Amino acid sequence: MTDLRRDGAAALDWAARYLEEVSEKPVLAQVKPGAIRDRLPSTAPAQPEPFEHVLRDLDDILLPGITHWQHPRYFAYFATSASEPGILAELLTATLNSVAFLWRTSPASTELEGVVLDWVADMLGLPSGWHGHIEDTASIATLAAIIAARVATGRNQVVCSEQAHSSVDKAARMLGMQLRKVPVDEEFRMRVSELDDLSDTAVVVATVGTTASTAVDPVAQVADAAERGGTWLHVDAAYAGTAMVCPEFRWAFTGVERADSLVVNAHKWMLTPMDCSLLWTRRPEDFRKAFSLIPEYLRAPDAEDALSLSEYGPALGRRFRALKLWAVLRCYGRSGLQAHVRNGVDLAAKFESWVRQDSDWEVCARRHFSVVCFRLKGSDQRNAELLERVNASGELFMSHAMLRGRYVLRLAIGQMSTTEEDVCRAWDVLRREAGA
Amino acid sequence: MTDLRRDGAAALDWAARYLEEVSEKPVLAQVKPGAIRDRLPSTAPAQPEPFEHVLRDLDDILLPGITHWQHPRYFAYFATSASEPGILAELLTATLNSVAFLWRTSPASTELEGVVLDWVADMLGLPSGWHGHIEDTASIATLAAIIAARVATGRNQVVCSEQAHSSVDKAARMLGMQLRKVPVDEEFRMRVSELDDLSDTAVVVATVGTTASTAVDPVAQVADAAERGGTWLHVDAAYAGTAMVCPEFRWAFTGVERADSLVVNAHKWMLTPMDCSLLWTRRPEDFRKAFSLIPEYLRAPDAEDALSLSEYGPALGRRFRALKLWAVLRCYGRSGLQAHVRNGVDLAAKFESWVRQDSDWEVCARRHFSVVCFRLKGSDQRNAELLERVNASGELFMSHAMLRGRYVLRLAIGQMSTTEEDVCRAWDVLRREAGA
Repeated sequence: MTDLRRDGAAALDWAARYLEEVSEKPVLAQVKPGAIRDRLPSTAPAQPEPFEHVLRDLDDILLPGITHWQHPRYFAYFATSASEPGILAELLTATLNSVAFLWRTSPASTELEGVVLDWVADMLGLPSGWHGHIEDTASIATLAAIIAARVATGRNQVVCSEQAHSSVDKAARMLGMQLRKVPVDEEFRMRVSELDDLSDTAVVVATVGTTASTAVDPVAQVADAAERGGTWLHVDAAYAGTAMVCPEFRWAFTGVERADSLVVNAHKWMLTPMDCSLLWTRRPEDFRKAFSLIPEYLRAPDAEDALSLSEYGPALGRRFRALKLWAVLRCYGRSGLQAHVRNGVDLAAKFESWVRQDSDWEVCARRHFSVVCFRLKGSDQRNAELLERVNASGELFMSHAMLRGRYVLRLAIGQMSTTEEDVCRAWDVLRREAGA
Repeated sequence: MTDLRRDGAAALDWAARYLEEVSEKPVLAQVKPGAIRDRLPSTAPAQPEPFEHVLRDLDDILLPGITHWQHPRYFAYFATSASEPGILAELLTATLNSVAFLWRTSPASTELEGVVLDWVADMLGLPSGWHGHIEDTASIATLAAIIAARVATGRNQVVCSEQAHSSVDKAARMLGMQLRKVPVDEEFRMRVSELDDLSDTAVVVATVGTTASTAVDPVAQVADAAERGGTWLHVDAAYAGTAMVCPEFRWAFTGVERADSLVVNAHKWMLTPMDCSLLWTRRPEDFRKAFSLIPEYLRAPDAEDALSLSEYGPALGRRFRALKLWAVLRCYGRSGLQAHVRNGVDLAAKFESWVRQDSDWEVCARRHFSVVCFRLKGSDQRNAELLERVNASGELFMSHAMLRGRYVLRLAIGQMSTTEEDVCRAWDVLRREAGA
């Protein structure tokens, strides 16, 4: 049988070696669809195998099919990091295996979740007293907020900008709600003048840090319109929210204090392993109205005094996700998170300046945080082909977006181990492949 | 900074000691609401702290507030186990930090997820060719199935029995769908004669192993009614599904081969750490119709050939949950899982026989698997007070249910380390406290 000490030492050594060596691997998995599946047996083993076989096959079979999110030259989508304290906390979480659907089934996990959400709210400059809890992803957090808004308002329409994340579309579709998309201005911000009357709208979603270009909607003006319409304001700051640990970026949160709900993904820029999506609300009673449902077999004598977080979101079973966030906050501190954010932004600023200095290239959106949108002057096709060559090289991994109908490349910085050398290398590879 | 080797060794030692010593701790946390929160500071630290502080405070502050799900005398709700291979796999998952929203962002995780779901389908005797993927909890899996059913049928009603899990109510409420509850027979099974015409119903949910008493709905007859009505059949086997690894329990899955979707929680009886809810469907195209939404910034050149599992469920971001299930299946094998299930069922049968032999007590529902519903002869209040005394003793943790309007006690067996001695001790404590 698996021995936690002996096999655990091997697993830990695997993990440490992985992080030591990840920068030498191709960032994007260089396999064809089906290649991994083809190497795995079609049925489970009849008899137990030693854990070392798992580690062996992880190396031999799975690793070639891993795209390395922990690679310092992972620049696609939004860069993330699972930092060491977060990784180790996941080991502890799995060991405890708490399932916090009621307070009594895991008092420590329930109360720690409230405490760390208060800590982060304070670090990001949010008003005190908001109710916070953790969902797995921003998709589910946004879904939850939209459900609460529909229950609170009795209305059936969602409004967001054209540049809002696809999770808003998906939530509206899942819930059978109407969706109206508002055009954006030249900086990809919601045009508040086109918000119109919101009195038929359940929820308006403002984005701080859009996925394509990290644009910042004018939240205060959206809040004015929401207030006039009696409409719920949900703010999606899944990526950029973490930047608010640094006062110099707080301009982007102007008006967020008037939100009814807010989502920030700690598993994006806050060094916490996937999954850890932070959802705050100043209307906890509306969430409870939407989600609280305690059947007889879950009634407990302490329920009157004790908060059960499953009453505030879609899922009943809840993993002890707060532990990893707590470990990260303790081991980095406010200063460590600030340094991490500033490092990413500084590197992005450097990269942007190199692009601006080269007349073959152009910057395609104002850069606010750690994402640079740019392109090689020339056709969309030329840029799309360039991106494929760059990603196929394995030297870095980037993604793209469409802005004003044009194909643009995105360099998203945020990995904990990314250095100036890595960003330099990215620029070298881009120019090399552009000339190829 | 945290060092994965040095601090990891300490974390691993903590985990191993925890599992070695957990049986000596009080099962139910013996703290008052607010006690843990009161011992934690109100803001995050300004400066980094060493990881050993996390371990120290985990011991000193959090542990008293942990209800020990890994305790051999955890008998509440449905007993679960995070087994050693599953725990170590969570360490590896956090280290890799893959986010599998597209095939290319994690080919290995996407393909392994399909493979292990095929393995488990085979082990449970399901038809081959079903499409399987992992959601975090059965709440979300059932929500997803109901959404797919609504899209596929264009109807707005959900039907389940009075004994169905609260997640069905919650999903209907979240989606703004009507819910009709069908009465149950004397063995707490859905009365198919009262199903009536389902032609206005999007989805009928049958349960194999209800939460209160592990009753088994007559799935084949429900399937007949669903077929007549053109209605989606979703089967909730969150707990009991795992028992199907043993052929002697397969009677309970009669008719499940006709389901449109099926949920089994590997994080319940299948030795996999929370969270790992397995969702199969024979209508993957209906799931895709409900959930696929690929915005431009997620378009990838390999999308035509490669399955992205985020197209089959509510969330975009997906953790590499398949790794822990793979590790468990490898390290236990089919035989190990069978032994685990049979051990739980045998212990439950023994406990049931002791209850039956004592004229002060009565068994309150037919026992199918590893849960015994019973009560002390006498009032509901006497039983409720007894349960509180038993749980306050810290010697075991149980929960209750209402059956035919009466308060009954539930002993749910399923922890990997539970022995006959633990079940004996539970029976001793129950009789001692009943006489107190």
